[in-house]
Amino acid sequence: MNWESNVRKVVPYVAGEQPSGKVIKLNTNENPYAPAPGVSALLKGYDVSLLRKYPDMNSSSLVNALSEKYNVKPSQIFVGIGSDDVLAMAFLTFFNSGKKILFPDITYSFYDVWADLYKIPYETIPLDDDFKIHPEDYEKENGGVIFPNPNAPTGVAMDPADIRKILDHNRDVVCIVDEAYVDFGTESALSLLPEYDNLLVVQTFSKSRSMAGLRVGYAIGNEKIISYLQDVKFSFNSYTMNSLTLAVGAEAVRDDEYFNTTCEKIIRTREKLKADLRELGFEFPDSKANFIFATHPAVSAESIYTELKKRNIYVRYFKKPRIDNYLRITVGTDEECDELVRNLKEITG
Amino acid sequence: MNWESNVRKVVPYVAGEQPSGKVIKLNTNENPYAPAPGVSALLKGYDVSLLRKYPDMNSSSLVNALSEKYNVKPSQIFVGIGSDDVLAMAFLTFFNSGKKILFPDITYSFYDVWADLYKIPYETIPLDDDFKIHPEDYEKENGGVIFPNPNAPTGVAMDPADIRKILDHNRDVVCIVDEAYVDFGTESALSLLPEYDNLLVVQTFSKSRSMAGLRVGYAIGNEKIISYLQDVKFSFNSYTMNSLTLAVGAEAVRDDEYFNTTCEKIIRTREKLKADLRELGFEFPDSKANFIFATHPAVSAESIYTELKKRNIYVRYFKKPRIDNYLRITVGTDEECDELVRNLKEITG
Repeated sequence: MNWESNVRKVVPYVAGEQPSGKVIKLNTNENPYAPAPGVSALLKGYDVSLLRKYPDMNSSSLVNALSEKYNVKPSQIFVGIGSDDVLAMAFLTFFNSGKKILFPDITYSFYDVWADLYKIPYETIPLDDDFKIHPEDYEKENGGVIFPNPNAPTGVAMDPADIRKILDHNRDVVCIVDEAYVDFGTESALSLLPEYDNLLVVQTFSKSRSMAGLRVGYAIGNEKIISYLQDVKFSFNSYTMNSLTLAVGAEAVRDDEYFNTTCEKIIRTREKLKADLRELGFEFPDSKANFIFATHPAVSAESIYTELKKRNIYVRYFKKPRIDNYLRITVGTDEECDELVRNLKEITG
Repeated sequence: MNWESNVRKVVPYVAGEQPSGKVIKLNTNENPYAPAPGVSALLKGYDVSLLRKYPDMNSSSLVNALSEKYNVKPSQIFVGIGSDDVLAMAFLTFFNSGKKILFPDITYSFYDVWADLYKIPYETIPLDDDFKIHPEDYEKENGGVIFPNPNAPTGVAMDPADIRKILDHNRDVVCIVDEAYVDFGTESALSLLPEYDNLLVVQTFSKSRSMAGLRVGYAIGNEKIISYLQDVKFSFNSYTMNSLTLAVGAEAVRDDEYFNTTCEKIIRTREKLKADLRELGFEFPDSKANFIFATHPAVSAESIYTELKKRNIYVRYFKKPRIDNYLRITVGTDEECDELVRNLKEITG
């Protein structure tokens, strides 16, 4: 009997593409613009001797900055190592009924992974042919509900009225709205918090705040739901957010003007890219995210993906049921998108 | 039926003391010296636009620096958010047999927490009355072994020959040596790696590298054991180490001279503190860590702890079986330790 026989068996990981050199990288929904300028100044003046001590367990600097920005109490905010960490912790904390949790069949690819990790049963609910979520599909008995708004990788946003319907029919379980892409033109569910104590809204610094490299995510909810999340987190790890990250994150949140400007720039570029893609014959659900999920009637997504890669332009292609003829194209700078369109014209023309 | 009925129930968390203001803080084994000077220079010149992208999944800069320092291949190193994250991941990956894992009854307080979290059965093995680990106690059938060397909170180090005995009797399970405090005068088990493929050595930046605030830990083992750990980690979270942390961590590792100097300073202060404490009548097992685990025959640990706190000196007191008359005193600067001794003299005199 070898020690290897008792190692946890997992689905082998396939690394994402991390192209180096001069490429146009529109494959991971990163923000094309640098973080808020204050971040650089903060690092220049940072007193590194602070690092010798354990970080502030309550992440107060970052939590307080978020509290001001979103006009909620600090005790309504939970922060973690990217929204992946926050969401995984929420799965562990709230989805304990033994009943199936519900999420869309086409959605963020880690939901089923965390469910499996924590042995949470789940059922995926098919989106309709326009990639839309229908609230009535979430009325059956369940152990919890999670969906992104706008959804990924489709970019499709839900009406606030539809989110309300899902919440109304699921007061006995926790419903998580994953708002990773909300800042690019979708109405946040945060305004529903006063009415729903079972609602958890999760956001991230990775997209709209230009800081995928900092790994910061957060959940906002009512005080009770957040305190449950804190209890579980602190029960097995006292310190995750590092001191430098807390300082940098807080500084970034305080610069609302820069944040709004870059979000608006990305929205403008997205709308132009939509028009350009339509002109080339591409079809796509209307996106409210910083990406467009597009298909072409004449040329297969896989061959476009391959051809773009040869030209050092990276977009995302998922070889998965229902979406294997689609490309998820991140909205970059105007210049990057123009270069993409020029190449797509050659490939599809 | 309310959503709260399905929340994961945990043992409520009792926050550690985070005194503010001017205090002597000898309660969390932090390093009294600032991180390596290169860290400050690195932050001043850091190109923040790097943060807009996801971090390097392979943590190459940090892994390569550690690889050079410890003369192992990069593929023998796993990095995480503090050694807590690394250890928890190792529990999840390797302790899957359903058999009890073994660790000392007096040891790092998170081992049983992670075992419970991942539903791993465990048995605690009593230390002897001198707080020593006996290798023969670890010869019974088990699902894995973990112990710190030197042990915490006792500070007692094990002979390399004894570690070898434990490894020899447990070739069919993974044995983890938690070396959080190894750099203060204990021989590392790293030299045993060529002989034992079931050995995982875990270290941290929190103590000897003066960076508790950065949250970096790492495991070193043979390539196979590390690849299992990577597979599990990547199966549910692609990005944990942030870009800034990777750069800062790598910079700190490269300054071996500063590292050696501060470790030596702490060892010298510790030995002087031992002599001073002995003079006041304190008794303690010989410590090879950056703390001393001491008891006084005349005055109770709890009352010393309380009295010191009134004087703004914080040490650690655990109200737990077998050790509730001991104080864990972190080795600070010479000045801090002298001030501590002056106060202890008044309290115990």
